[in-house]
Amino acid sequence: MRNSEKPFFCKMNTFGHIFRLTSFGESHGEAVGGVIDGCPAGIELDMDFIQNELDRRRPGQSRITTPRKESDTVIFLSGIFEGKTTGMPIGFMVRNENQHSNDYDNLKNVYRPSHADYTYHQKYGIRDHRGGGRSSARETIARVVGGAIAKLALKQLGVSIAAYTSQVGGIQLDKDYKHYDLSLIESTPVRTPDLEKAEQMTELIQEVKSKGDTIGGIITCVVQDVPAGLGEPVFGKLHAALGAAMLSINAAKGFEYGDGFDVNHRGSEVNDSFFNDEGKINTRSNHSGGIQAGISNGQDIYFRVAFKPVATILMEQQTVNVRGENAIVKARGRHDACVLPRAVPIVEAMAAMTILDYYLLSKTQ
Amino acid sequence: MRNSEKPFFCKMNTFGHIFRLTSFGESHGEAVGGVIDGCPAGIELDMDFIQNELDRRRPGQSRITTPRKESDTVIFLSGIFEGKTTGMPIGFMVRNENQHSNDYDNLKNVYRPSHADYTYHQKYGIRDHRGGGRSSARETIARVVGGAIAKLALKQLGVSIAAYTSQVGGIQLDKDYKHYDLSLIESTPVRTPDLEKAEQMTELIQEVKSKGDTIGGIITCVVQDVPAGLGEPVFGKLHAALGAAMLSINAAKGFEYGDGFDVNHRGSEVNDSFFNDEGKINTRSNHSGGIQAGISNGQDIYFRVAFKPVATILMEQQTVNVRGENAIVKARGRHDACVLPRAVPIVEAMAAMTILDYYLLSKTQ
Amino acid sequence: MRNSEKPFFCKMNTFGHIFRLTSFGESHGEAVGGVIDGCPAGIELDMDFIQNELDRRRPGQSRITTPRKESDTVIFLSGIFEGKTTGMPIGFMVRNENQHSNDYDNLKNVYRPSHADYTYHQKYGIRDHRGGGRSSARETIARVVGGAIAKLALKQLGVSIAAYTSQVGGIQLDKDYKHYDLSLIESTPVRTPDLEKAEQMTELIQEVKSKGDTIGGIITCVVQDVPAGLGEPVFGKLHAALGAAMLSINAAKGFEYGDGFDVNHRGSEVNDSFFNDEGKINTRSNHSGGIQAGISNGQDIYFRVAFKPVATILMEQQTVNVRGENAIVKARGRHDACVLPRAVPIVEAMAAMTILDYYLLSKTQ
Amino acid sequence: MRNSEKPFFCKMNTFGHIFRLTSFGESHGEAVGGVIDGCPAGIELDMDFIQNELDRRRPGQSRITTPRKESDTVIFLSGIFEGKTTGMPIGFMVRNENQHSNDYDNLKNVYRPSHADYTYHQKYGIRDHRGGGRSSARETIARVVGGAIAKLALKQLGVSIAAYTSQVGGIQLDKDYKHYDLSLIESTPVRTPDLEKAEQMTELIQEVKSKGDTIGGIITCVVQDVPAGLGEPVFGKLHAALGAAMLSINAAKGFEYGDGFDVNHRGSEVNDSFFNDEGKINTRSNHSGGIQAGISNGQDIYFRVAFKPVATILMEQQTVNVRGENAIVKARGRHDACVLPRAVPIVEAMAAMTILDYYLLSKTQ
Repeated sequence: MRNSEKPFFCKMNTFGHIFRLTSFGESHGEAVGGVIDGCPAGIELDMDFIQNELDRRRPGQSRITTPRKESDTVIFLSGIFEGKTTGMPIGFMVRNENQHSNDYDNLKNVYRPSHADYTYHQKYGIRDHRGGGRSSARETIARVVGGAIAKLALKQLGVSIAAYTSQVGGIQLDKDYKHYDLSLIESTPVRTPDLEKAEQMTELIQEVKSKGDTIGGIITCVVQDVPAGLGEPVFGKLHAALGAAMLSINAAKGFEYGDGFDVNHRGSEVNDSFFNDEGKINTRSNHSGGIQAGISNGQDIYFRVAFKPVATILMEQQTVNVRGENAIVKARGRHDACVLPRAVPIVEAMAAMTILDYYLLSKTQ
Repeated sequence: MRNSEKPFFCKMNTFGHIFRLTSFGESHGEAVGGVIDGCPAGIELDMDFIQNELDRRRPGQSRITTPRKESDTVIFLSGIFEGKTTGMPIGFMVRNENQHSNDYDNLKNVYRPSHADYTYHQKYGIRDHRGGGRSSARETIARVVGGAIAKLALKQLGVSIAAYTSQVGGIQLDKDYKHYDLSLIESTPVRTPDLEKAEQMTELIQEVKSKGDTIGGIITCVVQDVPAGLGEPVFGKLHAALGAAMLSINAAKGFEYGDGFDVNHRGSEVNDSFFNDEGKINTRSNHSGGIQAGISNGQDIYFRVAFKPVATILMEQQTVNVRGENAIVKARGRHDACVLPRAVPIVEAMAAMTILDYYLLSKTQ
Repeated sequence: MRNSEKPFFCKMNTFGHIFRLTSFGESHGEAVGGVIDGCPAGIELDMDFIQNELDRRRPGQSRITTPRKESDTVIFLSGIFEGKTTGMPIGFMVRNENQHSNDYDNLKNVYRPSHADYTYHQKYGIRDHRGGGRSSARETIARVVGGAIAKLALKQLGVSIAAYTSQVGGIQLDKDYKHYDLSLIESTPVRTPDLEKAEQMTELIQEVKSKGDTIGGIITCVVQDVPAGLGEPVFGKLHAALGAAMLSINAAKGFEYGDGFDVNHRGSEVNDSFFNDEGKINTRSNHSGGIQAGISNGQDIYFRVAFKPVATILMEQQTVNVRGENAIVKARGRHDACVLPRAVPIVEAMAAMTILDYYLLSKTQ
Repeated sequence: MRNSEKPFFCKMNTFGHIFRLTSFGESHGEAVGGVIDGCPAGIELDMDFIQNELDRRRPGQSRITTPRKESDTVIFLSGIFEGKTTGMPIGFMVRNENQHSNDYDNLKNVYRPSHADYTYHQKYGIRDHRGGGRSSARETIARVVGGAIAKLALKQLGVSIAAYTSQVGGIQLDKDYKHYDLSLIESTPVRTPDLEKAEQMTELIQEVKSKGDTIGGIITCVVQDVPAGLGEPVFGKLHAALGAAMLSINAAKGFEYGDGFDVNHRGSEVNDSFFNDEGKINTRSNHSGGIQAGISNGQDIYFRVAFKPVATILMEQQTVNVRGENAIVKARGRHDACVLPRAVPIVEAMAAMTILDYYLLSKTQ
């Protein structure tokens, strides 16, 4: 609009086809929130459950997350009557508190390496140095609210979703989620069902944190009891939708489902044979990860999401300033040394919204 | 519409936001084709180039692909005037030839393991046993035509795209594409720039093929000279769009960009430091894979796509028939033992359409 | 893409949310056609019916339409198996014949008044003087094919659609469609159920035609037995969707439903009272036109569409040429003096696609 | 989701392609509001202007509107930094006050004729008798906020928009907006530039109101200095988008642009001749209403929107209750006898959002 060559726009703050979340809010604005459109009517909204989901992503929840404290209480503004969804759009918000904008003063004129600073400035021509702005993980609050409501809807269909930290740095769990008791996940701060590995991961995160550094890892997610038939052929394959959902989470670097990148196998080894299982069609293995030709087959859907180490480290780094001159940057403030524990509920939320959306899509008969 | 509980629908045959491909066609119908909407006007259509792209995905092109022969000649129906695009929708089709439907007679009542048979039947309630129908790789013809036109448009912007087979079974190239001379890719039937590994891969594919079996692998893709600023924050991150595009290709099982699943690193090791490179801002490394916070930063974009072994093998497999009874299936006919060589141009096509679409999106200023 | 300030694009060749028609083709290209996505599977395709719908819009069908002759035979390319839709995208085309491009040679450098010439040139920077190009009424062939298939699907739901010419110039029918026997519509070349007025309209059209002039009019459309509950509140009201559909037809200038522009009434006069009609809820009047608050109420939906006189007249007109100099233009060739008779099936087609799309949308439960 | 045959959904609370408003909120919930996505960055937000726009649609503003009093103060939650838009989504809300839910107690079990009661109940299976719920005119607050911001963006492009009441009951202005001084519109409570007719309209509304009845009318809207080239051919014609936007407003019954339903003319009379106007291409008349072939031609865009009388009247009406039994309903409470004066800013808001959206769409070059 102005005499500028910059493409000055931001779109794509809406997720989904039928069940649609539109999110808004920056880390240092008034509030973050969103509008959920297309939610089935009649879903009983268990407010304790929704708040608990938010608490799972909240900073300051344990010794291995950022000590930043925000209560993150969700306020619903519409779409609910007598405790149930009405089918009308659900507006909601979570107020921002505890913004230490001055933590960011020293970042005003420099680009943090591998952070959103440089690309946002290139794209929008605007330099909002207060925290991450829209690229902040605070944006994921809207996802968690949307995901919590999607989970409540999916519960009525019998679908369950569980994610866990399966790798932090070099410490990794066995790839097969069936080796683990998923009910143990929430008993560890790092959110992993292997209590011994959880301890090692926690120690690693603390060690990394003590140095002001950060560390990457992997989250595994399992979706059970999904009806067969969800997914759209060609461009709307179910795993393509799940992949896009996961890759939209901050710091995500990769997505694989079923055997994924474990490709050194022959068809005769990894094809999932069907058999008559006491009257029901079942498969003897599940290398397919519950999805064949882009459509769910009724087996467990499982996938893994890779996360890079958080870009913000409390160490000196070489960089340039906004004038392109070489400079040194050192962040301060309160940051996560490892996003994995807090990303677990976000992975679940994106999975829940995707599966519900595809379930509703499958109803256009 | 009928008295049936099946959700009898197929949607999602359209890809893209501004540059949009709508594809149609089954393996055993009259033709496959599509409509490209939103293509910039004034693009000179080099018909030899477009046909050559189709030839790269054509069956029967070398000793390691299926011997099925189809000329796959594209016929344009609209949107072109005096050799250039007019900005109007471009309709096109490729006639189907050489359909040996009777190759599929023995599959009429059984579900091939890990194939589309079962899930399509569950979803649509229809059993079209003639080849893969809409799930056939023949559908990718429309993608290659769309991708070829997108490449011609991107060429004007200076963007170049090259993909290659980087792993077949256990034979893998070094992960860093900079170790290779990408101009060698097309000189090998397996489409890999390492001539020695190419030979080994070819031998492996032939060995696997001689047994009627199949084998998986990985394709690496590099996109160079993409302008900084492409990508939409939050749900429309550039890598999320690329991931969805790649995962929509038949047999794709995983996507990673930059360091991807190689997560055992600390932030201090893998952050890409900026420096003043003779007046231009540059990064000393590219662990980010050319995308930061979902937006291109001007560095090379590179990613990897995992492909499972083709599900159709010429061996006896245990399965069930449409009545749920245990059965034995053995496919015959002409099939690829490894999709990788023919998938290379498809990966490039999906990358080209995605990058062009996001370039056009960035223009809504 | 080129060094040009013109926004060189064409989008929006897709209509619908679930049942979606993407159309392609110019009047002087190879073919016109489209892809129908999201069509329910299992719809029996009565090919005679579909061809008959095309014949209703074909030029040269009667003495009051353009004498241009084209057989307009539709060729289906995909999405059909054993005479029924499969749920996969339906590709189709109609070849262009009988293009007298040289009829347009004298128009090469002038803008016809009230025609697409000037605005297309402004928008696309391209001057394709051969007929109307994409703005030609030939584009409506794809709409009629899509509408014919939608009608076949709606027939299974009991929905029927009938449109007729209700005004040509100053000759107008009574506004209430209930005064007419709609089965008479097709018995007159002008497609109106009042045989006497039909004769007067025909005479008027012939008189206008003999002078090389054109004349406007109004089409009324009635949709019966639509289930209650179709339509989406707020921005997706059923009448807003119908309005957009109708206004997208060439030469359309206005849309009204129910009482429409007849606003000089009080609420107490035009509210539609409910009453118990032998156990069923019914209304005593239907000023609402079958839609209340954007949602169908089960009563007849009726609306009217205004069409301007065709812009192309065979008379001398003052205009400017592409260099902006004053000039005289006189079209020659074969043109309709009144679009109404041929627009009737197009109005029906757009209504059918809209109603079916909203029916399918209502199923996302 | 529940064992119910009702299609329990609400979608379509989003308007626009690039500049997109997603609205939420019911008349008797916590708040109404929305999210604006795709707004250009750098637009200075004149808060007084925005609030003034809200005041123009507010109830209780004059003696001819409902005496309901709500301050309707907008609170912005995101997307603004130092008084300017940042390109990030703009979340906003207006709290609901002064809800007299008990005004509606007597309506709990009956359907008000020509109101949303019956169709919403049919569609959603839910009976929220407190006011209009989502069908309430209160929903239009979000439109006015979105429109105000769109107007501020359009102002930078030189585009201006003015709407006025051109008919109430039988009192009508001359059709040609050029006969009036549009700067007088806001000086009358009925929002009409003809001061004498304004007085008559006001008297008519008061007379109607005194009887508990309501009355319909027409609003005319003029958009000036729109650049040539806005609009998308085929399904996305500019007037089709304007039509859909206007018809989505509560109580709208018809839309016409240019000559509209005034069809008794010949092409030779109403074609708009081009001429060289001191070096610029201009037209001698503007029967086209500024849009030719769906694309703006640079002339004034003008259109008219018909509104029915408000359905809620304070008189006894025959109806049925939710069990289908004949019943009498008599509304009480505070309602508008004529929506026109308050609908004027809503018509302008929808026009502003549509024109800006199409301007941004035209930039995808």
